Order: sequence, then C-alpha cells, then structure tokens
Amino acid sequence: MISFECDYNNGAHPIVLENLVKYNSSKPIPYGFDEFSERAKQKIREAIGMPDAQIFFLTGGTQANATTIDSMLYQYEGVICVGSGHINVHEAGAVEFTEHKIITLPDVQGKMEARVLDRYLDDFMHDGNKDHAVHPGLVYITFPTEFGTLYNAAELRDIYQVCQRYDLPLYIDGARLGYGLMADGNDVTLPYLARHCDVFYIGGTKIGALCGEAVVFSGRNAHKHFFSIQKQHGAVIAKGALIGLQFDALFTDSLYFRLSQHAIDMAMQLKQLFQEKGYQFYVDSPTNQQFLVIRNEEVERLGQQVAFTHFGQTDHHHTICRFVTSWATTQEEIDELHRLLDNDK
Amino acid sequence: MISFECDYNNGAHPIVLENLVKYNSSKPIPYGFDEFSERAKQKIREAIGMPDAQIFFLTGGTQANATTIDSMLYQYEGVICVGSGHINVHEAGAVEFTEHKIITLPDVQGKMEARVLDRYLDDFMHDGNKDHAVHPGLVYITFPTEFGTLYNAAELRDIYQVCQRYDLPLYIDGARLGYGLMADGNDVTLPYLARHCDVFYIGGTKIGALCGEAVVFSGRNAHKHFFSIQKQHGAVIAKGALIGLQFDALFTDSLYFRLSQHAIDMAMQLKQLFQEKGYQFYVDSPTNQQFLVIRNEEVERLGQQVAFTHFGQTDHHHTICRFVTSWATTQEEIDELHRLLDNDK
Amino acid sequence: MISFECDYNNGAHPIVLENLVKYNSSKPIPYGFDEFSERAKQKIREAIGMPDAQIFFLTGGTQANATTIDSMLYQYEGVICVGSGHINVHEAGAVEFTEHKIITLPDVQGKMEARVLDRYLDDFMHDGNKDHAVHPGLVYITFPTEFGTLYNAAELRDIYQVCQRYDLPLYIDGARLGYGLMADGNDVTLPYLARHCDVFYIGGTKIGALCGEAVVFSGRNAHKHFFSIQKQHGAVIAKGALIGLQFDALFTDSLYFRLSQHAIDMAMQLKQLFQEKGYQFYVDSPTNQQFLVIRNEEVERLGQQVAFTHFGQTDHHHTICRFVTSWATTQEEIDELHRLLDNDK
Amino acid sequence: MISFECDYNNGAHPIVLENLVKYNSSKPIPYGFDEFSERAKQKIREAIGMPDAQIFFLTGGTQANATTIDSMLYQYEGVICVGSGHINVHEAGAVEFTEHKIITLPDVQGKMEARVLDRYLDDFMHDGNKDHAVHPGLVYITFPTEFGTLYNAAELRDIYQVCQRYDLPLYIDGARLGYGLMADGNDVTLPYLARHCDVFYIGGTKIGALCGEAVVFSGRNAHKHFFSIQKQHGAVIAKGALIGLQFDALFTDSLYFRLSQHAIDMAMQLKQLFQEKGYQFYVDSPTNQQFLVIRNEEVERLGQQVAFTHFGQTDHHHTICRFVTSWATTQEEIDELHRLLDNDK
Repeated sequence: MISFECDYNNGAHPIVLENLVKYNSSKPIPYGFDEFSERAKQKIREAIGMPDAQIFFLTGGTQANATTIDSMLYQYEGVICVGSGHINVHEAGAVEFTEHKIITLPDVQGKMEARVLDRYLDDFMHDGNKDHAVHPGLVYITFPTEFGTLYNAAELRDIYQVCQRYDLPLYIDGARLGYGLMADGNDVTLPYLARHCDVFYIGGTKIGALCGEAVVFSGRNAHKHFFSIQKQHGAVIAKGALIGLQFDALFTDSLYFRLSQHAIDMAMQLKQLFQEKGYQFYVDSPTNQQFLVIRNEEVERLGQQVAFTHFGQTDHHHTICRFVTSWATTQEEIDELHRLLDNDK
Repeated sequence: MISFECDYNNGAHPIVLENLVKYNSSKPIPYGFDEFSERAKQKIREAIGMPDAQIFFLTGGTQANATTIDSMLYQYEGVICVGSGHINVHEAGAVEFTEHKIITLPDVQGKMEARVLDRYLDDFMHDGNKDHAVHPGLVYITFPTEFGTLYNAAELRDIYQVCQRYDLPLYIDGARLGYGLMADGNDVTLPYLARHCDVFYIGGTKIGALCGEAVVFSGRNAHKHFFSIQKQHGAVIAKGALIGLQFDALFTDSLYFRLSQHAIDMAMQLKQLFQEKGYQFYVDSPTNQQFLVIRNEEVERLGQQVAFTHFGQTDHHHTICRFVTSWATTQEEIDELHRLLDNDK
Repeated sequence: MISFECDYNNGAHPIVLENLVKYNSSKPIPYGFDEFSERAKQKIREAIGMPDAQIFFLTGGTQANATTIDSMLYQYEGVICVGSGHINVHEAGAVEFTEHKIITLPDVQGKMEARVLDRYLDDFMHDGNKDHAVHPGLVYITFPTEFGTLYNAAELRDIYQVCQRYDLPLYIDGARLGYGLMADGNDVTLPYLARHCDVFYIGGTKIGALCGEAVVFSGRNAHKHFFSIQKQHGAVIAKGALIGLQFDALFTDSLYFRLSQHAIDMAMQLKQLFQEKGYQFYVDSPTNQQFLVIRNEEVERLGQQVAFTHFGQTDHHHTICRFVTSWATTQEEIDELHRLLDNDK
Repeated sequence: MISFECDYNNGAHPIVLENLVKYNSSKPIPYGFDEFSERAKQKIREAIGMPDAQIFFLTGGTQANATTIDSMLYQYEGVICVGSGHINVHEAGAVEFTEHKIITLPDVQGKMEARVLDRYLDDFMHDGNKDHAVHPGLVYITFPTEFGTLYNAAELRDIYQVCQRYDLPLYIDGARLGYGLMADGNDVTLPYLARHCDVFYIGGTKIGALCGEAVVFSGRNAHKHFFSIQKQHGAVIAKGALIGLQFDALFTDSLYFRLSQHAIDMAMQLKQLFQEKGYQFYVDSPTNQQFLVIRNEEVERLGQQVAFTHFGQTDHHHTICRFVTSWATTQEEIDELHRLLDNDK
C-alpha cells in the first residue's frame, strides 16, 4: 500500500548516510564540539548569510522547541502561539513541563496575524492587573504552519515589527522549513527569514536526516549557558557528530533545498490530481502537506489502498484528511495514486 | 470616595475577628491539626451533608487552585477550563508552574457547556495521535464564574455526568461560593454542589475572613499525601488555627450565608439603580459582581466619584466596567451611588 | 502538660492582635499595597538602616524560601546549602519543586564554613566538565541554624566575601532571626546582617505574629517582577494588610526585639536547669532551641510530663531531644520544668 | 596523540552501521513502533530471560535517567542515590528539572551499601515530621559505578531486598552495563540483574552505537502512559528505527557482549601496565575505567602524549586521572601507551 501518511516514515537520504559511513572511524570530540559539527554550522551560516550565528544541534522538534523556548524565557513568562500551533497541540505539554504557559491567539488558516498579536500586546500593556497574568516573553510561529500555509515576506516582516516594538523575541519553528522555502509562490528566502526573527530551527528529521534539528540564533543572542540548559533537558547526545555529519551533507551542494524541491514537486502533482477529480480542499496549501475534506464513505474506501492521516471532522459526514509528500516520495507513488483515483470515481 | 472595586479590600467580619481574639492565648497544635480547625471542618461537613469529607485549609485562591489541581493530576495530564477561567487568566501561570497544561474550551458568558466538554473529550478519545497531546485529567469550573454567572442545578449535573462518563474528576473553584449560593434564582444548594463534583473550595477571603479557603474533597478522594504536596507548594502555615478559627466562626449560625446574602441584597439594589438609569449590562449577573458597558466619557466622569474596575473594551468608545459588592458593603454606599447617578444624568 | 515542643504553637502577641483589631474596619488596598504594609516596611527599613531596601511580605517560611530562591536563580542554577539546612531537610522538596537543585556542603554544628564554600567554588570553576553540572547561583544559610548555633560577625563577613568574590548572592533564612540577634554573646546586629548579605527574611510566625515573614532585599536587587513570581507561587494573599499590620506592631517600640529577648531569657534558664542536673548537650546553643542527648528510658519518663521533640538518635540508647522556648513561654513553665527535673533525679 | 579520555569519542561499530545502511530504504512506522525496534526488543527480552519485559529506546543517558525516574515518582517523592551518583553530579540538574529531589547517601567507592540504605529508610519511617520531608520513591544505583566498581550478586540482592521491604522500586543505570557484565570476577549476569531490580537501562551509546539506550521495565511495571511522558520530556525521536536497528545489531550474535569484552581486555592490559610501573590507583576497578593518583608534574608530562581526564585532586600535589578504554580501543593504542610509560620512567 502506498503511503502519504507523514514525512518521517523513512530513513536518511543516501548522501547523508554516506557521510556518516565515511567518517565513522574518525574520533570526533564528544558533545557536538567536533570538526564535522563545526563544518556543518559554517555551511549553515553561509546559507543564511550570517557569519556570526550561533547554532546548536538537537535530535527532534519537540526537544528543540522546549529547550529553545525555555532558554529564552524568565520563569514568570509565557510564549505566544496560535491555538493550532504545534507546541500547543502535538507536543504532550513539553512547554508547560518547563513551567511556561502557552498564551494562545486565534489563527487564520494556521497563521498568526500581526494585528491580532499587536492588539493582544497592547491590551496586556494597558491591563491594570497584568502582574496577575502571565507576561508574554516570546512569540512562536511555524513556517510552514500546521496547515501547510506560509507567511509571505510582508506578513513575516509585520509580525517581526510588532515583536520588536514590544521588545519580544520571535522564534520560528522550521520543522518543515525547506518545504516552505521551496514552495511555489513563496517569497521568503532563508537569509530573509533569518533576519526577520531572533531564533529559528532548520528541521532535518523531515528533510533527509535520520534525526536532527539545527537551532539558529541569528543575532548572537543565545543564552550563554545554552549547553547546560540543553543538558538539563536531556537534549545533548554524547556523539554530537551524528547530527553534525548529517547537516554537513544536507548543506553541501544545496542538498537540503533539492530534497525539499522534490517533495514540493510531488505535492503539487498530488494536489492537481485531487483538484482534477473535484475534491474539496480544507485549505489552499502550497507545501508538502495537503488537506482535503472527504466524505466518510470515501475516506474508508480510499483508506484501504493508500495511507493518509485523519485530521478531524468538519461535520458528521466529512473528515479532514492529510496527504503528505517528502523528499522520499517517488513518482511511482504519485502515479499509483493517480490510478487509484481514476478507478475510484 | 465610595468603592465597588472588589470584595477583598476590607478586614474580617467582627464575629470572625472576635473568634481569633477569644482563643488567642490557647496553645493550638501547629500545622492545622488543632481542635479549632477540626471543629470548623466538622461544621463544614454538616453544612454540606457529608460526614466523611476531607477538608484542608489554605490561605488564598491561587494557592488553593494550584495545590489542589497539582495533587489530582499525573505529570502528563492537564486541566480542562474555559478560556476565561480564573486559573487561565488571573493567576500568573500558577498551574503551568506545576508543569500542567490548561486545556481551554470556549465559554458562554463565563460558563462551560456540557456538550462542548463532551465533544472535546469524545474527539480526544478518538484522536489517533492522542499520546502526543496532553491528556485531560481534571475538569475545572467556577461557581460563580468570572462574569458572575451561575450554573443551574441541571447544568451542573450535566457537566458532572460528562466527567463521570470519561472518568474525570470535577473541581469547582468557589472563591465566591457563598455569593453564588445566595443569589436570586439559584437552585444549587451547598449539599447538591458537593454531591456533583469531586472537590471544591469554599472561599473565605472574599466572604468575611482575613484569609483562608477550605478545600473539600467530598468523596474521601484526597491524595493520601496531600499535606506533603501542600508543604511542597509552600501552602502550609505553621499556625493553622488562624484559618480554622475563622471558618469556625463563619460556619456557626450560618454566618457565611448571612454575609453572602447581604452582599447579594446590596448587589441587586446596585443592579436596579443602573437598570433604572438605562445603563447597558455586559452580562446578566445574579451575583455580587455586575458588569456594565459604559461610554468612555462617562467612565471617566463616574470614576472620579466611585471606584470600580475596568474589565476590557467592547469597542474604542465603550469600556466594560465591573462593580462589586461584598459582605462589607453598606446601605450608605448604595445610597451614595444612587445620589451620584441621579446627579450624573 | 507543659510544652517546649516548638515556637509556633501559640497565637499572636496581644499587641500584634490589637493592631489587627484596631484597623479592621479600614479599607486597605489589596495585595500588600496598603498604607499599613508601607508603614511596616518603613519601620523595618529604619531598623536595618537601609532606606532603600525592598520588602515583601509572605505567609510562611517555606513559601518565603522557595519564592525568594526561585526569583534569584536562572533555570540551570542551584542553591548552595549545608546538608542539614532547613530547605534541604524540612520543606518537602519545595525548592526542587521550582526545578532548582540544592547543592549540599558539609556543616559544622549546622554552620557553613567560608573555607569549605571557597573550596567548593574554586573546584567548580576549575572543573572542565562544569557545563554538565548544576551551576551554583546563590548561597543559603540560616541565622540561627537548625541546631540553634550562630555565625559571629567575622564568620558572616568571611562567607559574604567568598560569595562576592564568586559573584554569588547570599541569602539568609531568618525564620528565628530575632532569637539569634538577642542571643548572649551574639555580635551580629540587624544592620550588620543586612549589609553582609543580598537578601534575608525576618521571621514573624515564630516571633509574635499569627503568620508572616518579611523578605528584605537590601540592595534594591529584587527581581523586577517579584510580585508576579510571588503570585505564580501562590504566595500572595489578597488582604496583604493582615501581614503588614502585624509587622507594623512588631517593629513599633522594638516589640520584635523585646519578644525575642524574653525567649532567650527563658531558654538560658532552661539551659541552666539541664546543665545543673548534669544533662549532656548535643551542641552548645545560645538561642531559643536547646538540644540534649538523653537516655531513652529517661526520654520516655520525661515525655510523660513535658512535651519536646525527638531529633534523631546518637546510638540505640540515646535520643537527641529538642527543647524550644518562645516569646510566649512563661516563667511558670520554666519553674514547672524545674520541679519536674528535681523530682526526676 | 592516543586517547583514553572517554568511551564515546568514536562512531558506531561497523556491524551496527551496516544494519542502518541495510534497512535505510525501508519505510518504518515512526516513533519506535517499527518492526526493527520490535525485533531488537525481542532479542533483549531473550537476553535477559524475561519474555514480558517492556522496553523503550531513548537517545542518551541523561534523557533515559530523567524520563524513567520522573515516570516512576509521584510529585512529592524523591530518588535515593549516593552523593557521587551520576544523576547527582553530571547531569546538570536534569532530575531536579522534573521537580524531584535527589536524596543522597554516602557511598563506599561509588557504591551504595544496603545497610546504609536500610538505616536511612528506617529513620525516615520513624520520623515524626516525615510529611515535611521529601518521601523516598525510588532507589537509583549504577552498574558499574562512577568509579568503575561493581556490586557483586550478593550486594545487589541485599539492596534489592531492602527496596522490596520498603516497597520502593530499584532502578539501575547501565550506561556502561556491558563493561560491568564482562568484567573479571563479576558474578552478576544480565538475567540476574534484571530479576534484582524493577527497571534498568542498557547503554548503547558507550558500547557500539551512535546513540541509544534501552530502558527495560522487567516486571511489566512501566507507566501506562510512558510514551506520553517520553514525548513531554522531548525524548521521542520520530524515526525510532534509528535506535531499534542499532540494538538489533548489538543483540545479534552477542555483539554487545563481545564489544564489552574487548574493552575489558584492553582495560586490564592498561591496568597492568600502570601497575607494573608502580602507579598508585585511586580505586581498584575491574571495568573499563581506571582511576590513578598521579603527581602533578607527571600529569602534565604524560598529558602531552596521551589524552585522559582529570577527576579531581587528592591533595595539592596529586591529581586523580581517569583512563578509559572502549570497544573501539585498539591493541596499537595500548602498545603505544606501553612505549610512553617505558620512556617516561
């Protein structure tokens, strides 16, 4: 059975794995202070156009989010996020586990709006009882969002300007960063994104790596004891070169971007197939996640031949279904889906 | 200037204070194991009609909420609450400080709806990824709500039935419990409330005491090490008789209910005054908190002669204003308000 | 039966209670922003000779310790304390509950030694793996210690100098501060103590108050959002004047010091009684807590006529017994103990 | 320069890496629910002789410890550990970060003694104020200890019997488990160890893997929501097969034990070299970590040609030096050390 269930049910891209094999018998310095990690960081710094950026490698998204957010907040502060934000719904309370509240704002198709953020912060500043409330200490957004949508360059700039006006850092969760950057119509480049936030992470797990996320503090603003905080979170691995070597490969010859582009190509074909068959989309996503609203009988029939994810219900008769492509999706899988849809209707 | 700002800018009711004075030279056993605390608990057990209830005295509402909620949750569980719930907006993140997430549901005039709760829990149970989400472990409501509204007996029963169906305990925050119980039209009695939840607290601070809340576990379901958890929270006072003696007085000769009734009488007069003058109400509250929507120029004019609280804006020209009565509000203050409103119009 | 069990099994000193009664019908601003609290703070500032000191009132010692310590530490930092320190053994893990480690050093009769602290800090600074350890962020001592002993002025200065050399704040737990200050032979004054630490608390609960501790930041070094941190800890009471009025009384006409002196007088009589009867002391304490090593048969016999606390065993046949006096101990109680000991031998 | 600095400055054993390469293009179910992880678990269950054991894979030791310990404790409970225990000194407060206290006992050469544990627990149970203390909820030991020493079968049984008598689970940190099991003179087998504790972890990172530890609950006693707790800790990786495949290789044809045996062989040669040269040992270790006490001048001289770790000072003139072998240590490295020592003396 073909699967469009998620973008992490696969191994590493062969070039990434090759790099691990190639340097396996070297004796890297532990805890990420090895030459491969340093080389990878250097390549990332070049890709974002910030020679001074501080970079830390962690193993997964929840870990990267909880550690980074915790490192940037005082104990009485919370992080602002849309209600549908990943940290608010899919991370088992990892942020609250670090004692910080997630302050939720309404979203529009997964996106935070600058004016809504501004209104919230303005209200907070004028609240006579604000010392009885959780102080906002950080703004969190994802690129792309949980619904595969993207901020355009102007929207991102507007949000960042609000953050700066209230002296709040902006953190961008880039679990699927490459899939956003390479999307059709996207006008946000990696250097632009790096300049319009204070910290972000480049997701490796979903784009070619076995594990690994690169947390990037663009303005030399990492906590001076970030390593100790990482250790305290159980977020340091002894053989840090495992992640360094993977990012070294991903940021050589634009592999990261080529893998991302491939997933987008596959996603656009998939999107077109469903469009041609008259399927209803839940949201218009330009990235590797496509959300459709499908009648329950059809969900069941389709589900016997292709794997996808149920994302909720719009009513008793319709299910929101998520179809995901990745760097590992093949043309054959798309063609097989084509055949299935042809036969289905 | 007369004040309807809040219900805790006063001292103790004279009878309560008298009890403190009367037994001041006794030598009570520390940490709440004294005879006065036991006597107070006995009187509360009688008032709720549950001879087995376990009762703990804490000093304030935020402390009572955080300690009780933490004692009832496993580390991976969260507490369900409406977005406007007190623990979610006015307690500086005290619940998240104990590492638990507050899972928010939409409210209707401050109240949680049984069907919304049911829908959320049903969705959670059927969520294939629920192990990546925060598990609901407790339901929290307030009686009265942040907007002064009340659940009627049927609504409370419906919520409790949903809780029981999903094997979730229900906790009722009763910071202003007496003001709810004595409200016009209320059909929830104290014994009924105690039987329709698993734990609740009887607020003393706002109703006649200097400090003190009584947390009541109706079904002998308190954590067996609740005292240690209380201590860990910094929520034990050495001279526990301070609170025991106050509740002893409050639950003698129905003082608690008589004080509550007085505040309601004052509130209903106040409500009528504003109604007669044609003021617009933000919500129809039968309790000691009245919320009005007033034009900003008038807010300013009125604010020079009477103290009240700004609760937000409905638009750029109107403010939500909260007027609160308490057991200490006098007829003279109401009459003075009457004069002010007469002159104002 | 007479009791020397503890110094908190009593009410308030009459003058303290009188102040509560006197101002009961005033309408103080809530949350400690009232005039009485301000007046009390002013008197404390005068007593310590620091017109700029920032002062916060909390209800109890564990709460004061956990809130203050948490407010002064970054998340990756711990607090240094002797193994027998109160926060390490008698507060149910309230400090760890705020996610901070207690780093323990060996003690000498309850006291930390400057050279031991220095050695620990020097080792830490030279530890190549220190980023894998908890960073020391604060030093905690008690005055008097858990064993009733005192630092003299030189010892306190030495500890503070080590702290300053390593840029670590010093916090002094003064649950029984008055009993230390008024002890025979003590050469530490309140202003001296305030100048030789960064923050300390003046215990009210054990010296005349119903509840209340005054946390004093001597150098305007309180966290700028200390109130929010207090609230987050459940450590704010709505009617803050309750504590303000008590400290107002305690710091009027040196009441706090007179009450302390009385307890010391009683303790010295008690100590002499036991000395005359040839009892063995566990430690030579000049304060209101006296520790004796008594054969188990005698412990039992004595325990039938006088209440005291068992503090551990020195061997299978001897128990460490603690006898405590307080401001409320009467000459009659001492005389009764005298009679008991006379009859006993 | 040859290095005996640590046992994690290397890659994976070739067979382990081969397994990753071999199955790289399969499409494993995410989050550790894949067939490879299941196969690895099955092999571990066979190796420990417990067909029902529950096994979870995590990426590193600190993460495994903090997650496992947190999953087994109620909020008011702490974990008992010797002062030199790894969680107490080298994990940056990761346990306290989960709000649990580490209760420390004195050690003998890194080991906990059953009678010391017994005495502590007996004292706790008889402590009249125990509700003001942190309740012990778990006992933690390491095999081998921080000083490379081992519990023999009788000592392990004695500790476990004390644990069972007080109804406390026993957790064994096996970061270097293989190096303990294969040590000369060790009489503890893997099945014996599994039967004499409630949970333990098999360290992969230090014995042939790139990353990965297998937490084993021997008695079907894992928390029913262990996965959610893992997620909350940021301790789940999306591509769980990464660890499953490594343990699959390690537990095929006894690779784990053969690698461990090799490290022990190298360590015993190294030990003999130092013994022959008359070096003083800090402790008599039968495992892959050897601790020597060396004069500072020599430490410096030796340090120019071979890498090792400074572990503290015995006095101003002597340093405790740790030399570590691993599965990756070669005979050539030992021979080179031999030459160095020959030339040095």
